[in-house]
Amino acid sequence: MAGYSIRKEDYIKRLRRIEGQVRGLQRMIDEDTYCIDVLTQISSTTKALQKVGLGLLDEHLHHCVKAAVAESDEAGNEKLDEAMVAIERLMKS
Amino acid sequence: MAGYSIRKEDYIKRLRRIEGQVRGLQRMIDEDTYCIDVLTQISSTTKALQKVGLGLLDEHLHHCVKAAVAESDEAGNEKLDEAMVAIERLMKS
Amino acid sequence: MAGYSIRKEDYIKRLRRIEGQVRGLQRMIDEDTYCIDVLTQISSTTKALQKVGLGLLDEHLHHCVKAAVAESDEAGNEKLDEAMVAIERLMKS
Amino acid sequence: MAGYSIRKEDYIKRLRRIEGQVRGLQRMIDEDTYCIDVLTQISSTTKALQKVGLGLLDEHLHHCVKAAVAESDEAGNEKLDEAMVAIERLMKS
Repeated sequence: MAGYSIRKEDYIKRLRRIEGQVRGLQRMIDEDTYCIDVLTQISSTTKALQKVGLGLLDEHLHHCVKAAVAESDEAGNEKLDEAMVAIERLMKS
Repeated sequence: MAGYSIRKEDYIKRLRRIEGQVRGLQRMIDEDTYCIDVLTQISSTTKALQKVGLGLLDEHLHHCVKAAVAESDEAGNEKLDEAMVAIERLMKS
Repeated sequence: MAGYSIRKEDYIKRLRRIEGQVRGLQRMIDEDTYCIDVLTQISSTTKALQKVGLGLLDEHLHHCVKAAVAESDEAGNEKLDEAMVAIERLMKS
Repeated sequence: MAGYSIRKEDYIKRLRRIEGQVRGLQRMIDEDTYCIDVLTQISSTTKALQKVGLGLLDEHLHHCVKAAVAESDEAGNEKLDEAMVAIERLMKS
């Protein structure tokens, strides 16, 4: 079971709102909205997405990674290495 | 007219694809997909959004800002200040 | 002449402070300072550096780019393309 | 003992190189180097700093956090919450 299962509904709700923002962006472009206003909306959408990412990472560390560390040193290291790759990727995106 | 008008269809197509990615994220969460895989998809969605932002900024500079600079020093400065705020916001998101 | 010339001293002063922060980081590592405190200092140093970058970009747009746009369409486009590459690089760093 | 102790010398060496880059930036400004070239150097310095940050975070997770998780659930959670704050800060800087 994924670590975020308990708050699943909350994540889906937030992603649905982000989906609405992306649809709003299409409408803005279609209606020739001023570039800077479109960029403001893009920044806010990106931030919302990254917040979801940070939330998932937090729960991943508190559940999957913690469980793996408790299981064995090897399992813990594997999960931590994998998490670091994800953190680096989030940082660059 | 917005600076990106000529490539309007291209932007809308890209945003539609991003909308699909966000819907895919909801499905992933709903199906308890492994956190790290969800995070990978979040990074790729964020990157796609930021690329749209950079594209819009590029056209904004080449059209609106250039036109304003040609018009008057004051108009040019105003547009450049506004663009800098947008750049800073994109950088932080 | 570079666009930032008027505020040259200000930039050098800020970079000297950043140099001091980087030297502080070496000392922290040497004294086995707690990781999280080192990371906090790294974040603040990175932010200070990026602020210098944004300041330089702002002056570059207001001086070099504006002058090039006033000179000719071709010169303006060249400078804007070059600035976009720098913006993209700053965004990813 | 900090988690990065074994590679302490390596980190100090990298930070010394970053210090040299920051000094180079001062020289560039002093010599009126073209803005875009200064910005390129700022991006590369920022990236180097963030790489040091990611390296420290990696060792922090593999040492301090793992040890805390092994100690008790409470100690583990505390360290993970603290690490998340640092990750979020690195992401925004």
